[in-house]
Amino acid sequence: MQLAKVIGDVVITRKDDNLTGIKLMVLQPIAADGSNIGRTLVAVDAVGAGVGETVFFVRGKEASFPFYPTEVPTDAGIVGIVDHWDLD
Amino acid sequence: MQLAKVIGDVVITRKDDNLTGIKLMVLQPIAADGSNIGRTLVAVDAVGAGVGETVFFVRGKEASFPFYPTEVPTDAGIVGIVDHWDLD
Amino acid sequence: MQLAKVIGDVVITRKDDNLTGIKLMVLQPIAADGSNIGRTLVAVDAVGAGVGETVFFVRGKEASFPFYPTEVPTDAGIVGIVDHWDLD
Amino acid sequence: MQLAKVIGDVVITRKDDNLTGIKLMVLQPIAADGSNIGRTLVAVDAVGAGVGETVFFVRGKEASFPFYPTEVPTDAGIVGIVDHWDLD
Amino acid sequence: MQLAKVIGDVVITRKDDNLTGIKLMVLQPIAADGSNIGRTLVAVDAVGAGVGETVFFVRGKEASFPFYPTEVPTDAGIVGIVDHWDLD
Repeated sequence: MQLAKVIGDVVITRKDDNLTGIKLMVLQPIAADGSNIGRTLVAVDAVGAGVGETVFFVRGKEASFPFYPTEVPTDAGIVGIVDHWDLD
Repeated sequence: MQLAKVIGDVVITRKDDNLTGIKLMVLQPIAADGSNIGRTLVAVDAVGAGVGETVFFVRGKEASFPFYPTEVPTDAGIVGIVDHWDLD
Repeated sequence: MQLAKVIGDVVITRKDDNLTGIKLMVLQPIAADGSNIGRTLVAVDAVGAGVGETVFFVRGKEASFPFYPTEVPTDAGIVGIVDHWDLD
Repeated sequence: MQLAKVIGDVVITRKDDNLTGIKLMVLQPIAADGSNIGRTLVAVDAVGAGVGETVFFVRGKEASFPFYPTEVPTDAGIVGIVDHWDLD
Repeated sequence: MQLAKVIGDVVITRKDDNLTGIKLMVLQPIAADGSNIGRTLVAVDAVGAGVGETVFFVRGKEASFPFYPTEVPTDAGIVGIVDHWDLD
């Protein structure tokens, strides 16, 4: 899983039926020191995250677990909103 | 999931039976600022996307969900056509 | 799997129910020569690792195996604490 | 999925039983403009591709679908031979 | 799958129960020209490979297939020992 900032959302015209009603957010992954790392991506949201919040997200089929039994065709999903993290 | 432009399509001579009748498109992934990022790839199309459209696609086994129960041997699939996206 | 140092932990405000009670650690992957490689990431902990320990972790759905039958939505998990390794 | 050139094959001495009788080819991934991109890799072949042919291949568990019900332990497989592709 | 050299092994103090009795090797991936590419990693061994041998390994859940029905929490596994490979 990676930490990320929610930086936007996506409006879709046509999509797979199993994505109906699901919010799609644009994420910028961040490193443990808070700096941006890697590509922006689009993720489904299972926890009600808003633009500007720090979240953590999963990649892969696991991203669809929170929507079970709907088989959401996604490979990235927000699964938690971060309060803070501590480094050694 | 990532945003991408559909930039072409692929014509196949021999293929796995479970790919019969499925459209194969060439995608160029794009970042949230619209710039090209990363490698072009080949994806199956579940929503009827055309060359020139902006789409979002999934990687991994999830790409075959829209074709269930056919076990399409793919690791990338277009699952939505993008109208626009908003950044904070 | 990769070797990593546990460098911190994450405090969450809201999260998917299947992550309740699960410890989330910040990892810095390391190479066989002990140097840092690649991005920090967040992993679930199945073996009771503490900050400062050297561990190895798995990526992908396999990270949720130790928590079965709970379907933990994670893509990274600590599965062992390393005593040492030998190179040829 | 990615486009690739078949550039060689691999001869194995000992292997997992479920790989018996399966051809292993060395692939060089190529971009949509035909240039080499990324690392060479080893893939199983489900369509009878030969050295020198242009193919497309899948990554992940999907690579073992064509051999079902044998659980081939592979993460890359050739699933089609390319005639040509068109770019916009 | 990728070609790799076995360059070491790992000694673990605490680990997930399903890793008991399984050998953990340190691998250096190599390209088709024999040069080192990418990061060292830790892989389970299903074929009895020794330090110094050239092997090929799979990534992902497929790495646990040879140990079925034990659900080994791994994302990399050696599945064959290479005699040689031929390039075009």
